[in-house]
Amino acid sequence: MDYDLLVIGSGPGGYVAAIRASQLNMKVAVVEKSEIGGICLNWGCIPTKSLLKSAQVLDYINHAEDYGIRGGAEAKPDFGAIVARGRGVAEGMSKGIQYLFRKNNIELLKGFGALAGGSEVEVTSDDGSKKKYSAGNIIIATGARSKELPGLKQDGRKIIGYREAMTLPVQPETMVVAGSGAIGSEFAYFYQTIGTSVTLVEFMPRIVPNEDEEVSRQLERSFKKMKMRVLTGSSVESADTSGDKCRLKILTPRGYEELETDIVLSAVGVETNITGIGLELAGVRTEKGKVVVDDYYRTNVPGIFAIGDIVHGPALAHVASAEGIACVEKIAGLDPEPVDYSNIPSCIYTTPEIASCGMTEAAAKAAGREIRVGKFPFAASGKANASGSKEGFVKLIFDASDGELLGAHMIGANVTEMISELVVARKLETTAHEIIKSVHPHPTMSEAIMEAAAAAYGEVIHL
Amino acid sequence: MDYDLLVIGSGPGGYVAAIRASQLNMKVAVVEKSEIGGICLNWGCIPTKSLLKSAQVLDYINHAEDYGIRGGAEAKPDFGAIVARGRGVAEGMSKGIQYLFRKNNIELLKGFGALAGGSEVEVTSDDGSKKKYSAGNIIIATGARSKELPGLKQDGRKIIGYREAMTLPVQPETMVVAGSGAIGSEFAYFYQTIGTSVTLVEFMPRIVPNEDEEVSRQLERSFKKMKMRVLTGSSVESADTSGDKCRLKILTPRGYEELETDIVLSAVGVETNITGIGLELAGVRTEKGKVVVDDYYRTNVPGIFAIGDIVHGPALAHVASAEGIACVEKIAGLDPEPVDYSNIPSCIYTTPEIASCGMTEAAAKAAGREIRVGKFPFAASGKANASGSKEGFVKLIFDASDGELLGAHMIGANVTEMISELVVARKLETTAHEIIKSVHPHPTMSEAIMEAAAAAYGEVIHL
Repeated sequence: MDYDLLVIGSGPGGYVAAIRASQLNMKVAVVEKSEIGGICLNWGCIPTKSLLKSAQVLDYINHAEDYGIRGGAEAKPDFGAIVARGRGVAEGMSKGIQYLFRKNNIELLKGFGALAGGSEVEVTSDDGSKKKYSAGNIIIATGARSKELPGLKQDGRKIIGYREAMTLPVQPETMVVAGSGAIGSEFAYFYQTIGTSVTLVEFMPRIVPNEDEEVSRQLERSFKKMKMRVLTGSSVESADTSGDKCRLKILTPRGYEELETDIVLSAVGVETNITGIGLELAGVRTEKGKVVVDDYYRTNVPGIFAIGDIVHGPALAHVASAEGIACVEKIAGLDPEPVDYSNIPSCIYTTPEIASCGMTEAAAKAAGREIRVGKFPFAASGKANASGSKEGFVKLIFDASDGELLGAHMIGANVTEMISELVVARKLETTAHEIIKSVHPHPTMSEAIMEAAAAAYGEVIHL
Repeated sequence: MDYDLLVIGSGPGGYVAAIRASQLNMKVAVVEKSEIGGICLNWGCIPTKSLLKSAQVLDYINHAEDYGIRGGAEAKPDFGAIVARGRGVAEGMSKGIQYLFRKNNIELLKGFGALAGGSEVEVTSDDGSKKKYSAGNIIIATGARSKELPGLKQDGRKIIGYREAMTLPVQPETMVVAGSGAIGSEFAYFYQTIGTSVTLVEFMPRIVPNEDEEVSRQLERSFKKMKMRVLTGSSVESADTSGDKCRLKILTPRGYEELETDIVLSAVGVETNITGIGLELAGVRTEKGKVVVDDYYRTNVPGIFAIGDIVHGPALAHVASAEGIACVEKIAGLDPEPVDYSNIPSCIYTTPEIASCGMTEAAAKAAGREIRVGKFPFAASGKANASGSKEGFVKLIFDASDGELLGAHMIGANVTEMISELVVARKLETTAHEIIKSVHPHPTMSEAIMEAAAAAYGEVIHL
C-alpha cells in the first residue's frame, strides 16, 4: 500500500480528515484537481466573508454621521479592490493549508481522483497522464457545485453562479438573485450595500426558508429597509440574454412580471460531485444523489468512506470537518461519538447576521413537543443601543416539561459568534435555568440569550 | 409597612433587584438621588460603549482602503457629536428603566436614602425635605465612585475622573491616563483612536494587570502599534496645574520623568459609597470599606441586605445584577443557588477586546493545579483573516487530571460576545473534549475556542 489513507478532495472535509489522520500516525495523501482548500476556502465561506466585511465597512462609513464622524460621504467602494481583497484572502488561506500539509507530512497529489477498484485510486493530471495509488483507507470528499435550474442555465457572463459572483469584472448596476438561502442572501446583501440595485427572488413564501419564521420576517424587513426588492413565492421562469441585458420572466403571486437586469445570480442550491469518480466501478452504493454511509462514514465497500456534501446531513463546511475527524478517529481505532446532526449550528453573514441551531418553533410543534418560547429583542439591549445595532432578537425554544433547550434562533449583530454558546449548552444538556443563572457579561449582545431564557419563564428583567 | 422591599440605589444591582422582586409579587420602591440606572447606565458601561463604538467606526474608516473603500481619508471625528451620542444613549436607557419601573409598579423615591434604624429609610429630597418610609426588607445598593490618589486630587478640569472623561467640552490634544484597568484602558483606546496623544501609566509591571500575562502583553503590543505611549511599573507622583497645562512628575523604572499634558484621567479604581447612609445608626457591620454579607446578601441586621460594589466580589454590573436577583429570590422564599464568584466573566472593550473567566495560568499554578494549556492565535483563523482582525488569541486552561476547564482568556475582535460560551460551559462542568466535539460554525472567531481546546490535547487542526 502506498498510503494508510488517501483522501479525494481537499475541502474542509478532506483537508481536516487528512490532518487528523496524520496526527494519528497515518501515512496520508490528498488528491486535489483544483485549488487546495476546496470551494469553502477558495470560492465559498472565506472569500465571501471578505466581501461582506468590505460591505460592512462601507455600511459603517455610510452611517458614520450617526456615530459622530463627519466627512465619510466621500467614501466609495472600489469594486476591483474589494474583489482583489477577497481573492487575496482566499489565496492566503489556501497557502496556509499547503503549509499544514507539509508540516503534517501529507502528500498532495495534483489531479482528478477516481476510485479504480479495490484499494486503488487513479489520479489524472492536467496533462492527461494517469497514475494509480493504493491505500488501506480511501475517503471520498468531493463536495458539491452550484445547481442549475432548467430555465436558468448559467452562461458565466449574465447568468452566473457563486464563483463568478466573486470575480465579476465590473460591478453590475442591477442584479437579480434567484434563491435566498445563505449564499443568495449574502450576495444580495453584499451587492445592495455596495450600490447595485438588487432584486431577491425566492420560490418559497419567505426568504431564508430554512430559518425560523420570525427570523425570515426580520431579515425581509431589514433588506427592504436598505431598499432591496424582495419577491417571495416567486420564480424565474425564463431568461433571454440575446440583448445587452438579461430579460427575465418572473412568476409572482400577482402574475407574470418582466424584468431587465445586468446579471442574474443563480443561488438555488448545490448538487453533489459524485459522477465520474468511479463509484460504480468500485461498487459504492448511492441514493438520491448522495453516497450511502453509516454513522462513521463507512460506505458499503470496506475501506472506502465518504464525508461532506456528498453524504447525508447539511452541506456545511463545519459539518464536513466534524465528519472527517469522526471518520478518521474511528479508522484509527479510537471511540469517537457520532456527529450529532440535531446540534449543528447554521450561520448567515448578512447584516443583520443570522445564527441558529436545533429545532425551529414550527418544527418543535410539528414534532408534538409542548414548548415554552422566550424571545428578547435587541432593541431592549444596552449594548445594542450603544453600538447602534438594535435590529433583531434572540428566540429560544424549551421543552415545557423539563426545560430542555430544543432550539435557538437569532438575528442581529454578532449572533454568528454567539451561537456556539447554545451549541455547547445543548451538548451538555442544559436547561433554561442553567442559562438564566449563568452570569453573562454586561454590556454584551449575549445577555439577550440569558434574557430570552428568562422570558420563557416570566423572569425577564429588561422587557 | 409602606413596602415589602425598599432598595437604596437604582444601579444594575438595585433596579434589577426591584424588578425581580416585583415579579415575585412584592410591593417595591427604589430610592435614587441622581440618574435612574446608576453609574453603569449613565456614566459607565453604557455610554462608554457608545464612545468606543464611535472610535471603532472611525478606526474602520481610517483603514477603509484595506477593505477596498476609497475616499475615507476625509473623515474626521466630531468630538461634540460623539459625546452627545453617548449622552443620548445613556438618557434613552435611563428612560427605559423608568418605563420598566412603571410597568412593574415600582415606586421611585427621588432623593438621598439612608437607613434610619429598624425597618425605616429616610429620604432627603433635593430641597432638603426629609421623609421616612418603612419596609419589610431593605437592600442597600449604593455602589461606588472614582477613587482619588493623594498625589492626584481630581479638580474636574485638568485632573478628572471617568465622568468628566465622558463630557469634556473639547477634545484634548494630549492626555495621561493613570491606571490601566478596564476603565483606564478603554478611555486610553478611545482618546488615542480619535486623535488625542495618550500616555497610559500603570503602577504594576503590566497593563490590565488582572488579566492573564499573555493578554497583557498582546494589549500592550496593540496599543503601541497605534502609537500610544505605555509606561508600566510607573506612577504619577505629583501634578502641578498652576500653568496652562498640567505638569506631571512620573516615577518610572528608569527614574523620574517630567511630562506636560492637557488632561490627566485618574482611573486607579473605585471606592464604595458607604458613608452617610446610616450604616452605623442601623448597626450594619462593615469591614475594609465593604458591608459584610452572607451568601444571600444578608447583613448582620435582620431585614437589611447589601449587594453590588459595596459587598465582597468584583465591582461589576453583571455581578451586582446577579446578586440582586439571588438576594430577592431568597427573600421571596425561593431556593436560588448562591452566585458562583469563580465563574464571573470580565470584559474590556478596547480594540482588541479582552474577555476572561476563571483562573489565569499563573493563578492555576499558584493554586497547585497540574494544568494543560491550549492556545489558538486568530492569525490562523479564516474568519479573522477575512475580516482583517488577526490580532489576539484564545487561551484555555484545563485541569490535567480530568480535563475540567479552569479558565478562559481571550483577546481579539468580538471576544466579549464569545466568553459566555465558556461561562455556560464551566457552569455545566464541561471537559475539554466536550468543547472540542461541539461543532462550532465555520467561519467564525468562535472556532478558535474549539481549536484552543484541541491544542491542549494535540488535536488542533489549523496550527
